Amino acid sequence: MTSRDSLATGQRSLGDPSVRFPLWPPLTAGCPVTSNDSVSYPVEVDYAYDRVPAGLFATAPGQPRGHERWAPLLPPLHAPGLGEGGTPLVPLGEGLWIKDESRNPTWSHKDRINRVTVSAAVGAGAEGIVVASSGNHGASAAAYAARAGLRCVVLSSAGTPPAVDAFLRAYGAVVLPVPSEARWPLLRRIAQRFGYHPVSNVTPTHTGHAFGPEGYKTLAYEIYAELGVPAAVFLPTGYGELLFGVWKGFAELVALGVTDRVPRLFSCEPAAGGPLAAALRDGLPATTVPVGETAAYAIGSSVGGYRGTVAVRESGGAALLVSDAEMSAARAELAGAGLWAELSAAAGLAGYRQRGGPASAEGPVVCVSTSSGFKDRDLLVGGESAEVDPEDWAEVERRVERG
Amino acid sequence: MTSRDSLATGQRSLGDPSVRFPLWPPLTAGCPVTSNDSVSYPVEVDYAYDRVPAGLFATAPGQPRGHERWAPLLPPLHAPGLGEGGTPLVPLGEGLWIKDESRNPTWSHKDRINRVTVSAAVGAGAEGIVVASSGNHGASAAAYAARAGLRCVVLSSAGTPPAVDAFLRAYGAVVLPVPSEARWPLLRRIAQRFGYHPVSNVTPTHTGHAFGPEGYKTLAYEIYAELGVPAAVFLPTGYGELLFGVWKGFAELVALGVTDRVPRLFSCEPAAGGPLAAALRDGLPATTVPVGETAAYAIGSSVGGYRGTVAVRESGGAALLVSDAEMSAARAELAGAGLWAELSAAAGLAGYRQRGGPASAEGPVVCVSTSSGFKDRDLLVGGESAEVDPEDWAEVERRVERG
Repeated sequence: MTSRDSLATGQRSLGDPSVRFPLWPPLTAGCPVTSNDSVSYPVEVDYAYDRVPAGLFATAPGQPRGHERWAPLLPPLHAPGLGEGGTPLVPLGEGLWIKDESRNPTWSHKDRINRVTVSAAVGAGAEGIVVASSGNHGASAAAYAARAGLRCVVLSSAGTPPAVDAFLRAYGAVVLPVPSEARWPLLRRIAQRFGYHPVSNVTPTHTGHAFGPEGYKTLAYEIYAELGVPAAVFLPTGYGELLFGVWKGFAELVALGVTDRVPRLFSCEPAAGGPLAAALRDGLPATTVPVGETAAYAIGSSVGGYRGTVAVRESGGAALLVSDAEMSAARAELAGAGLWAELSAAAGLAGYRQRGGPASAEGPVVCVSTSSGFKDRDLLVGGESAEVDPEDWAEVERRVERG
Repeated sequence: MTSRDSLATGQRSLGDPSVRFPLWPPLTAGCPVTSNDSVSYPVEVDYAYDRVPAGLFATAPGQPRGHERWAPLLPPLHAPGLGEGGTPLVPLGEGLWIKDESRNPTWSHKDRINRVTVSAAVGAGAEGIVVASSGNHGASAAAYAARAGLRCVVLSSAGTPPAVDAFLRAYGAVVLPVPSEARWPLLRRIAQRFGYHPVSNVTPTHTGHAFGPEGYKTLAYEIYAELGVPAAVFLPTGYGELLFGVWKGFAELVALGVTDRVPRLFSCEPAAGGPLAAALRDGLPATTVPVGETAAYAIGSSVGGYRGTVAVRESGGAALLVSDAEMSAARAELAGAGLWAELSAAAGLAGYRQRGGPASAEGPVVCVSTSSGFKDRDLLVGGESAEVDPEDWAEVERRVERG
């Protein structure tokens, strides 16, 4: 074994950890044993933790860029990478750090998951992938599929912002905008008919891809390598995969004896929906809720999943609901510090501000900002800048002074 | 002195290296001694090279992210950073590497320069900056100004793509679209009236900011730290600042005895213009040319500068002209490998392909890709993806199969 070989040994049910499955094929519809009509339970990946190379989490010279660095604790990386991860922590004062995920290959955190899911498709021998997404997830999947030489079908929504539509199409994927409710049945049918590997969810409550959230663990590893264990991490939350991945990464560091605690994790869902907050409030493993109007389309989920419940509960965190106005204020705060984020991406900082800012002397706080401002629906709201007559110096002065 | 202190000692004319100036104030209009009516000569920054810390170019643990790592060989970093630089080299096969500059804080190489120019504004005591730009340079300047608490005026062009206009405004800058020919006079007038520091060019042939290209040297340092000295580097070229910065970085490595040669540098200008190619062809230090139609608006310059001439000549490279069709093919090649680049950003790879691909056994080749596909004018050309009726399975099959 080289240090870059995966130590993955199999899949394990989150519904009942004693229920185990072989590593292949990836269970793209969650745990077939423990799921029932009301809740679908995801699976996770197990590893031979006793064989993790010493010093994996030390900052050492010559570390490879991208998921390769953490390959022992990831499923096999059959698909080529794009230098995903390794994003900076930008200080925002008062012990607050922004983990800027817009520095990824397709400018969002989704690249961490798609390196892993497209690798699963390659490992499973699929000729293509199919994904339901109107934004970052779809474009990221398309990019990794293109790089791996796989075909890609993206089931997007009618009403996808034009810039995001162009983004989805940029990598040569077949983009099919369909009504939202038609996406999952169509995804299943395309997967069956063409043998394409589904890399997004196909179950009533969210299970998503069996291997996917493993890719998000690298966020925890990176934060630990740079800051140690923070007091808390605030995360934009849709289906809870990111949340779970970050929790699992820190939990592994504890299990490996690298550190002795996990940070408190705060899920930050749009107040217009909030299936995770509802599940925790009602004592359910997962649930669905109606979703009202929100411009945070990337995380405006009606469907929750059990992963998020585990992460918030096990970390001693909480499920927060943030309004569009709070996200908008957080987005403005980020822009004022030089970081232009998507509205959804600002949900983490919005949650942190809602909690009243710095948490006494508990230690540093990290807010994950998931993506760039280019993805927003309201990109062009307010129209373009009005041209100014350069001869009209009084008007130039007025506009400069007004600022 | 700590290892993060700047070793900058003064400014030196590129028109006559014996002509020297103090470090402050930055000469924002080039060399006042050697410039004449037909050519403006830039200045560069000098350093106490004999005091460069040992091991600065070794890959060592715990290196800071961003320009801080290279602070001894940069002008003083008075403005706070955003984790600029540290972008990945993505392999494209056959010894070819893409330096993906879209992973910077505002998703282009311009962040390397603006950390430095906004620092110069802070060091000079200015309350604001003013910049003429319709794209990446302006947005990057606005981001660093916001982070440093300076005001920012961007003189953009009418016809700026809407997504880029939103990008320019995102960081709170005053954006004034004006006819192209009015930008430079207005920039000078605003700088004078408000005491704002100009961070883009104000001279007849290009000199730009005295400190700016120093920020691009970090590209050479990073490439060296990861690959050693490549055989060649192909760069999208507008005013030639990037080209010069990369050349100077490698030249410093030679001067410091870290290595013994510089790579051949190939400037890649849109065929519709090409002031650097014209200057080299005609034996001039710099010149201006008319610019025809090109969609590569970020590098469609009529104005060249002496810096590019130095870089191509001293490195033994060549000035290439690439057509829009060649850039478009290169952009498609990058997208097929999972990298969505702006048309201008693909000029480097277009130049490499024009030269016939791999250069025998000379060593690795790096093409710099400067920015993301979100910046293109033709983002929405071809319309949005047509919605599909999910009940019409035959149509779904047809579209998936057509690919």
